[in-house]
Amino acid sequence: MSEPAYRRLHVHERRRQLLELAAELFATHAFAELSMARIAREAGISKALLYHYFPSKQELFVATLQQATEELTAATEPPAELAPPAALAQSVDAFLAWIEAHETAYRKLLESVGSVPEVRALVDEVRDRTSARILDGIGAGPNPPPRVRTAVRSWLWQMDGAILDWLEHRDLARTELRDFLLGALAGALMAAGAAELLGAGG
Amino acid sequence: MSEPAYRRLHVHERRRQLLELAAELFATHAFAELSMARIAREAGISKALLYHYFPSKQELFVATLQQATEELTAATEPPAELAPPAALAQSVDAFLAWIEAHETAYRKLLESVGSVPEVRALVDEVRDRTSARILDGIGAGPNPPPRVRTAVRSWLWQMDGAILDWLEHRDLARTELRDFLLGALAGALMAAGAAELLGAGG
Repeated sequence: MSEPAYRRLHVHERRRQLLELAAELFATHAFAELSMARIAREAGISKALLYHYFPSKQELFVATLQQATEELTAATEPPAELAPPAALAQSVDAFLAWIEAHETAYRKLLESVGSVPEVRALVDEVRDRTSARILDGIGAGPNPPPRVRTAVRSWLWQMDGAILDWLEHRDLARTELRDFLLGALAGALMAAGAAELLGAGG
Repeated sequence: MSEPAYRRLHVHERRRQLLELAAELFATHAFAELSMARIAREAGISKALLYHYFPSKQELFVATLQQATEELTAATEPPAELAPPAALAQSVDAFLAWIEAHETAYRKLLESVGSVPEVRALVDEVRDRTSARILDGIGAGPNPPPRVRTAVRSWLWQMDGAILDWLEHRDLARTELRDFLLGALAGALMAAGAAELLGAGG
């Protein structure tokens, strides 16, 4: 377009800053009680300008979640040179570290799955992408046997359950939780008759 | 009270019938598009009478879920004479059978966790009760080590994830899914350093 580069950068940067601020506000307030007027005020811009960037509160909310899941995906991308068990350990570690830093956002995300259809779609998409990444990482290929797919996919649910329990009780060290989760995945793969993947039988 | 017994029975019975009908309607319609007027019409009673039994649509919804979870708890209660692994296998089997018979209700329940606070409380309560029953059944006692608690509790999440995947793909027999789930629990207990519980090491 004819828009000069500095102007596009400015727009991009302001959008990013608004998302960051909104993420903080959504993490600390109930969705219903947070108004676009309040968000605009906190951002020091007019409500009209906020609506120019995000047509509705729901779209702003979904955009903050998308931003957060992109960050999370990047943070948990294992270095290509690591072999599957070490790569997975590193990803789980990075995931738990991210959650420690964004505990409220993570809780809110899981709590809002049912109330906003886009959130369900987003969480499903993250689980799909993560399953595919793990299945690929352990060499199960793009068309794994149903039991192997079930093992990996259900382990992602198990991970959310274990993490919420951990956030509630805080009586395990992060490394203990990580080791439990890796062991549980190995156990699920064993139960799926695929102990050889991930060296689960070792 | 001074109410005669036959009258109380009548009230109780009508309430039960209303719950049954409402459960069917909630399972086949979106919560937002189902009105109390419609439910009353389907039941052949006045809206005023329906409100007499249930003060709001949300309370009616929560009451149908409570009724369903009571049914489910009763259906999955293992016979007292069975030893833990067999008892658990039978409970999981009964649970999967119940879900096959109430697939839509089960999906709706998990989908509405975030939108209705009472549903979250109910699902949490069912998970608490089921965890306690399993921990008791495998002899882990009322104060299990944090890792064992995490293993059992996160396995209940894994179960929901595996079941939703199963309902979506239907490419595992129910007995295969059951066996996978029992194996995954054994694997999680192994990962928690408690292989001796449930004969998980065997």
